[in-house]
Amino acid sequence: MQNFEYYNPVRMVFGRQTIPKVSDLIPRERKVLMTYGGGSIKQNGVYDQIQQAMAGRGLLEFGGIEPNPAYETLMKAVEVCRKEKVDFLLSVGGGSVLDGTKFIAMAAHYSGGDPWEILTKNAAPERAVPLGCVLTLPATGSEMNCFAVISRQATQEKLAFANPMVYPQFSILDPETTFTLSERQVRNGIADAFAHVMEQYMTYPVNAPLQDRQAEAILLTLIEEGPKALKNPRDYDCRANLMWAATHALNGMIACGVPQDWATHMIGHEITALYGLDHAQTLVVVMPAVWKHQKQAKAAKLVQYAERIWGIKDGGEKAATAIRRTEEFFRSLGMKTRLSEYGIGAERFEEIAERLERRGAKLGEQGTIVGKAVVEILKLCL
Amino acid sequence: MQNFEYYNPVRMVFGRQTIPKVSDLIPRERKVLMTYGGGSIKQNGVYDQIQQAMAGRGLLEFGGIEPNPAYETLMKAVEVCRKEKVDFLLSVGGGSVLDGTKFIAMAAHYSGGDPWEILTKNAAPERAVPLGCVLTLPATGSEMNCFAVISRQATQEKLAFANPMVYPQFSILDPETTFTLSERQVRNGIADAFAHVMEQYMTYPVNAPLQDRQAEAILLTLIEEGPKALKNPRDYDCRANLMWAATHALNGMIACGVPQDWATHMIGHEITALYGLDHAQTLVVVMPAVWKHQKQAKAAKLVQYAERIWGIKDGGEKAATAIRRTEEFFRSLGMKTRLSEYGIGAERFEEIAERLERRGAKLGEQGTIVGKAVVEILKLCL
Repeated sequence: MQNFEYYNPVRMVFGRQTIPKVSDLIPRERKVLMTYGGGSIKQNGVYDQIQQAMAGRGLLEFGGIEPNPAYETLMKAVEVCRKEKVDFLLSVGGGSVLDGTKFIAMAAHYSGGDPWEILTKNAAPERAVPLGCVLTLPATGSEMNCFAVISRQATQEKLAFANPMVYPQFSILDPETTFTLSERQVRNGIADAFAHVMEQYMTYPVNAPLQDRQAEAILLTLIEEGPKALKNPRDYDCRANLMWAATHALNGMIACGVPQDWATHMIGHEITALYGLDHAQTLVVVMPAVWKHQKQAKAAKLVQYAERIWGIKDGGEKAATAIRRTEEFFRSLGMKTRLSEYGIGAERFEEIAERLERRGAKLGEQGTIVGKAVVEILKLCL
Repeated sequence: MQNFEYYNPVRMVFGRQTIPKVSDLIPRERKVLMTYGGGSIKQNGVYDQIQQAMAGRGLLEFGGIEPNPAYETLMKAVEVCRKEKVDFLLSVGGGSVLDGTKFIAMAAHYSGGDPWEILTKNAAPERAVPLGCVLTLPATGSEMNCFAVISRQATQEKLAFANPMVYPQFSILDPETTFTLSERQVRNGIADAFAHVMEQYMTYPVNAPLQDRQAEAILLTLIEEGPKALKNPRDYDCRANLMWAATHALNGMIACGVPQDWATHMIGHEITALYGLDHAQTLVVVMPAVWKHQKQAKAAKLVQYAERIWGIKDGGEKAATAIRRTEEFFRSLGMKTRLSEYGIGAERFEEIAERLERRGAKLGEQGTIVGKAVVEILKLCL
């Protein structure tokens, strides 16, 4: 096991009818800006629940944060924060709203220059606006971590930052809020959580059996509960299990003391930035290709995955069979596993590799995936 | 799954050569009292490492905290805290030192009356002395929770309290500090962690597959790594795996949304209080007896445990076989599984049941283990 630090102070409030607690969780004297997305919270009752809980407290609102939250949009919320002296942000929605809110929290206090530097230069203000979250879409794990991924439309960039200042002070997860998600949102969420686990698991063994089994626990839960959620959208326990699994997929626990990959995410972000595919759609396409390309380096973990997750007992081709079973699982959820199915060809593969190289990205748990290797992986996605 | 809240702000610092970080983790201006136990830290080099890291900072010391930390001893440390205006406690040792330090942290600011009320009346001061921990014995999980168990010699009582104010601000875990533990300490630690998992797992199913598998992940790690640690005391990875598993056994994660038992601990505490057995020795004796007595109520989880942990596939007697395999596992570590092996008979069983009843204790996940049932369980321990 490698040395590590683990610190995660998010208060998780989980279960039915928990949204009204938001009122007690935000100190009375705070000036609160509620952030949200395209307005689904107005259909599913969440907006009303929050308005009721926060009645008489002068709650401000900023809606319209899009999937792949855009710098251009978020900077408008930053203006509101500065003008209204907002000192608490309440993110209501999925991971995109929350990631965007984390950026707003940092940017509102950033006076050094263009807040985009938070993403490009690892810059940070001295403090961030404190924030809390009501989560309505299990997927990104953002509710229990200090990461965020932000896009900039003008430059077609999609970049990530991490800062302990943006740990939510609390995250409220009521699985009933997920009953009305679209099938596309549900399967994207399953795929996103699955890929998060894999970025921390599918590397090379470092004798960390607890972390391995904790990762496998999440994978097995996603595989069992995912199809059930699509079939019976109002099965509470199933939704609760998916929601809690997605949180664990990226709350840092399974990353303790083990190497991490993240090549799939880095390449996937480029595809989203250039072609507009959903984040999860890119992961499902790229992940198997990374495994195929890195079959030697990941051999031991691929075999363990084959045996423990898919119960594959037969001899030589465990790794290949496990990759195929993974693709079949995603196809069974209704997802595409090839870029060609999205009408994407090899035309911009070199450009993607160059964009990554320009930023100095060395992908994979060994930092060996650069340049030509990126193009090779992308070709395996066709 | 049941509703729950999870909050755990402890900063875990894990790995080789991490003890010197203590200096950065405690703010410079603090007046620090280091607490420790019988002096093993002076043999294993930990004391020296801390003295070196904290050189020139006027570190105060309070040694001699015993296993089953005693109110009588701890109150002497409370006097030191008050007199010297200590504003940071550094616990160096195992769970007993840390539990004792948590009590000191509370009692030093308790002005309502006898600090023993913290245990008997759930009383609490307005604030506690902040504390940090250097852990040298994996067992209790105290390094990543806000629980403590304290004994009072005068009344032969052993009681627990919980308060978020006593979460350690940090816990440093260097597995190398465990190389020199005695065999008895190692096997007690394995048993303690095993029992902690079981109190949160061996109840009834609530459709919480992730939590179940997270619990099973810890059990499998303890079963695999425990015997190795006894055989090769200087196997770093093995020690690291045991240490991290013991932390997870009681950091609250596997308790999320599931029922909890704790009958084994409650009965075990009485046996320690009256007969002086090691805490873990009592758990190994009582736990199988609780399962035998509660075989109907725990039937579904006993079968799941049999299948997933011990790979028992045969028909009708899975539960009984799993209980036997558990006892065999502890015997293989060199532990006794019967009270009679310790020369203890049934003489005080009624007294134990009465002591628990007087405190209003309703044991087990359903609160149904009281009076006669306690005596019946104790008879199954003979």
